[in-house]
Amino acid sequence: MINEQTNPLDGIFAALSDPKRRALLARLAAQDGLTVGELAGPLPISMPAVTRHLDVLEGAGLVSREKQGRRVLCHLRPAPLRAVRDWLTDYETFWTEGLDRLAALLEAKP
Amino acid sequence: MINEQTNPLDGIFAALSDPKRRALLARLAAQDGLTVGELAGPLPISMPAVTRHLDVLEGAGLVSREKQGRRVLCHLRPAPLRAVRDWLTDYETFWTEGLDRLAALLEAKP
Repeated sequence: MINEQTNPLDGIFAALSDPKRRALLARLAAQDGLTVGELAGPLPISMPAVTRHLDVLEGAGLVSREKQGRRVLCHLRPAPLRAVRDWLTDYETFWTEGLDRLAALLEAKP
Repeated sequence: MINEQTNPLDGIFAALSDPKRRALLARLAAQDGLTVGELAGPLPISMPAVTRHLDVLEGAGLVSREKQGRRVLCHLRPAPLRAVRDWLTDYETFWTEGLDRLAALLEAKP
């Protein structure tokens, strides 16, 4: 059940555990191709901090950076989010069945 | 955009970033109410390590422990997984639109 190799989900979940990194993803989802400066602008964190967060997001495959002349444009990459969605799918049956059991219980005890 | 209070998703994603903790969740999804000993059994980790992982999972609301006499039964709690699913929903539009754009591109260049 446990794979000795590193599972990409380890890095994806770790990257998503920081609210500032989730905020960066949300901004890139709303507006693709922002520069690091544009990303840092409205957030109460420094440019170097944003760069470090982008390093983590890029390491997890959630963000890519593209050089255009002197500007670096950031893009959200959805594949790791699909991996999370796929991982969750196994549990959906579980919680749906849980709700079904609850409904049956409520019907049995009106 | 960034909430100064701790967002429950921070702890949920951090808890899910460890493959052993995900393995524990998978076992509890397959069989509810296992004891700590039963959970530790097939995994290549010690009982104290399993207990520490369960502490993290319980802290994130993913697992609850119930005392029954001298046994402690573990249960998977799906609410945090639903929170992850809800968080992901905002991005589904993004990646679906991405696929639509790709499809349009492929149609334009047969």
